[in-house]
Amino acid sequence: MVGSVGNGSMDLREREKAVPLPKEFEREEMVDALTPLRPDTVEEEEKGRSREIVLGRNVHTMCLEVKEPEDDDEVTGDREAYMASVLARYRRSLIDRTKHHLGYPYNLDFDYGALSHLQHFSINNLGDPFIESNYGVHSRQFEVGVLDWFARLWELEKNEYWGYITNCGTEGNLHGILVGREVFPNGVLYASKESHYSVFKAARMYRMECVKVATLVSGEIDCADFKAKLFQNKEKPAIINVNIGTTVKGAVDDLDLVIQTLEENGFKDRFYIHCDGALFGLMMPFVKRAPKVTFKKPIGSVSVSGHKFVGCPMPCGVQITRLEHINALSSNVEYLASRDATIMGSRNGHAPIFLWYTLNRKGYRGFQKEVQKCLRNAHYLKDRLKEAGISVMLNELSSTVVFERPKDEDFVRQWQLACEGNIAHAVVMPNVTVEKLDHFLGELLEKRSHWYQEGKLSPPCIAAEVGKINCLCSLHKK
Amino acid sequence: MVGSVGNGSMDLREREKAVPLPKEFEREEMVDALTPLRPDTVEEEEKGRSREIVLGRNVHTMCLEVKEPEDDDEVTGDREAYMASVLARYRRSLIDRTKHHLGYPYNLDFDYGALSHLQHFSINNLGDPFIESNYGVHSRQFEVGVLDWFARLWELEKNEYWGYITNCGTEGNLHGILVGREVFPNGVLYASKESHYSVFKAARMYRMECVKVATLVSGEIDCADFKAKLFQNKEKPAIINVNIGTTVKGAVDDLDLVIQTLEENGFKDRFYIHCDGALFGLMMPFVKRAPKVTFKKPIGSVSVSGHKFVGCPMPCGVQITRLEHINALSSNVEYLASRDATIMGSRNGHAPIFLWYTLNRKGYRGFQKEVQKCLRNAHYLKDRLKEAGISVMLNELSSTVVFERPKDEDFVRQWQLACEGNIAHAVVMPNVTVEKLDHFLGELLEKRSHWYQEGKLSPPCIAAEVGKINCLCSLHKK
Repeated sequence: MVGSVGNGSMDLREREKAVPLPKEFEREEMVDALTPLRPDTVEEEEKGRSREIVLGRNVHTMCLEVKEPEDDDEVTGDREAYMASVLARYRRSLIDRTKHHLGYPYNLDFDYGALSHLQHFSINNLGDPFIESNYGVHSRQFEVGVLDWFARLWELEKNEYWGYITNCGTEGNLHGILVGREVFPNGVLYASKESHYSVFKAARMYRMECVKVATLVSGEIDCADFKAKLFQNKEKPAIINVNIGTTVKGAVDDLDLVIQTLEENGFKDRFYIHCDGALFGLMMPFVKRAPKVTFKKPIGSVSVSGHKFVGCPMPCGVQITRLEHINALSSNVEYLASRDATIMGSRNGHAPIFLWYTLNRKGYRGFQKEVQKCLRNAHYLKDRLKEAGISVMLNELSSTVVFERPKDEDFVRQWQLACEGNIAHAVVMPNVTVEKLDHFLGELLEKRSHWYQEGKLSPPCIAAEVGKINCLCSLHKK
Repeated sequence: MVGSVGNGSMDLREREKAVPLPKEFEREEMVDALTPLRPDTVEEEEKGRSREIVLGRNVHTMCLEVKEPEDDDEVTGDREAYMASVLARYRRSLIDRTKHHLGYPYNLDFDYGALSHLQHFSINNLGDPFIESNYGVHSRQFEVGVLDWFARLWELEKNEYWGYITNCGTEGNLHGILVGREVFPNGVLYASKESHYSVFKAARMYRMECVKVATLVSGEIDCADFKAKLFQNKEKPAIINVNIGTTVKGAVDDLDLVIQTLEENGFKDRFYIHCDGALFGLMMPFVKRAPKVTFKKPIGSVSVSGHKFVGCPMPCGVQITRLEHINALSSNVEYLASRDATIMGSRNGHAPIFLWYTLNRKGYRGFQKEVQKCLRNAHYLKDRLKEAGISVMLNELSSTVVFERPKDEDFVRQWQLACEGNIAHAVVMPNVTVEKLDHFLGELLEKRSHWYQEGKLSPPCIAAEVGKINCLCSLHKK
């Protein structure tokens, strides 16, 4: 530990037994200091010369610069004071931002205080969860426990599944689609146009032919269009991304109809289905009427996010697939002494412990209660919006409430709503209470009466996005 | 929060204002409980029927099972007690495993106590660090600060670089090679055979032609062979992975010679270089004699791991590339409303804060001192091994000490040494003190005299791996 803050005792012992430094590493051989790059231009740039950015708002100017410590920092304590003040301010902003949050499907209600002492360890589940590594500071025993739980949830036997805890939903999709491609190297990837963008990113990364399928107003895949698209590529196997909850509308693709469409159109035994269950993959199993995601159906993989419904300080996810497919993925890996079936190499060993902790504490029944609560509160939000004359849609068994995009961007940012075109959505997660919804509704209605001058201006028609039946614009209002 | 542990106050408020549950979500409509899958077969399997595993040691049996809470758990406290005991045992094992650790290049010496209160937040730097997202609980201001520091270290102007904080070294390599492929879609990927396995994984994922180049005994790329391989693919652009420290031998490829070989053989302006600086990317800049990694040379990207030299509770890394290349990567992304240039979507927002914290505390000079200490201690280890008659190699300016593989696997596991064939290595990181090395040497020499029956048996010849000059087997010892 250099810089003397922290573990000084080790420093001391080190000094007592100092070994002479080989000549070539003497101080004068080391580079002097980090010279600023064209120092006079930096400031000029800060003043407003913009970086070339393709789209979006560039936040480069919002940066918290890393500053080289002064020689006397250790004496004055200025450095520690500066950092403490930055962190305290940041913490305050996190509290505020966590409070006002409706648009992203993250469960912000967790308490991992019991695990805080583990932050002192560099926990790394290198590579495959089922293959030991010589690196001992891992959490594979927790990871495998969590994977077993999910395999059981999705009904795949212990000796027939393979999986790992990923860094996020995107990694799950990247993995599932890669497995599909390795099983069917010349397969065509099909995904509804409302699929998560990572699916299309995968197609590009993996150089796969990719066909976009139309959706119904609900956001579900349109199987009539799917059939037509399959017909255009009859000779090639099909790899399909099935959405268990789309990002924007929370729509659940009809898995059974997708399978039926494939089998009735000559694709029997020539398809691979990856289920992107980012959020709802963990909610659907707890609701009887929901279409069942299970490996008893001919699916190849399921992924789900861990930081969404479960809640976790950092993004993570779970990926489960059939062991037989992993052998396909791992063949021809002559350059490796071991199986290499994960996308990442070094893997976060803390995430499995967070998930293990929550699964153990809440259990199946705990999740069931939370799912009930979310669905109930989502209905509450939908009903209140509708009463107020705001166009709104809530898919059956979804907790994602889609409604007319608020006119004011500040309001959107304040409540961290995710928007697309004319619509916005709020995702009702376990941390979203009726009080929070009332607070949001109160602000929305007050602002909205200004935006539309108490009825003199018309709110937008969003029938194309939510269907005529859900649209309450002046044209569609009955 | 369901299950009543934790944030009970919110539960209470929630109950006071309960909304009636729509009929379709009534309790009886929910699935009853997680029924075990073929319960009688599970136990049988545990008893020893093995899963099909291609290679390696299967650790499925080491799993910490997730158990469904009993109905009275909240009353008895049994559940909390069980979990606390599991975690306490786990923590003890982490302390022990952290103490005995020489084989992996992770700096285990860090103290992020000041950041422990941030673990309560779900911090997510969704997508591009330079493009704002509506999700407010992020740490982009820290991330950009860290990126600016690294861009300055590798001499790329603020308005000319793009980068992000990755989940690990593999993600950096996946990104760098993807950028290379997007710049030269028909480029051939060249990498020395001692490159990290993620480089070859990338080639397979991205469906790129990949050519393995021979290495010198030191582990560096053999530029004579590189030239010959280039000659075989003259018509296609070259994408090259340059190792700034190979995994096994810590060898640094000669970047200048690689560039010269390319330019002298007709590849001028037809190549893309990605520098895999997993560990040494952050050590080399502090040593004057080391080949300089800088964007003033015609390189395309550099990646480095954050959990290695810096030290971090979870794996992470830094990826820096030229902004102009990112525009190539982001073109034709008609399906996205924004630039999508990262591999992952949701990204760990805690890692940037850990890195920012350490960079601020230690600064450039702090790292310089730590690099000196590591190089000094690595020389100490090499000299002691040599004195004891053990074959050993230490590349100039490396802290990875390669030596004869210990004969006993338990010893290898105890010290968490990384092995390949007949060789093992120890990576001397800032947390590796002379005391720890002495402890290791003491144990090694004692055990070794048993393994080789006090000289009656011969230790292996490792001249092929470390060169005759470094081999102290009976044949090569002078």
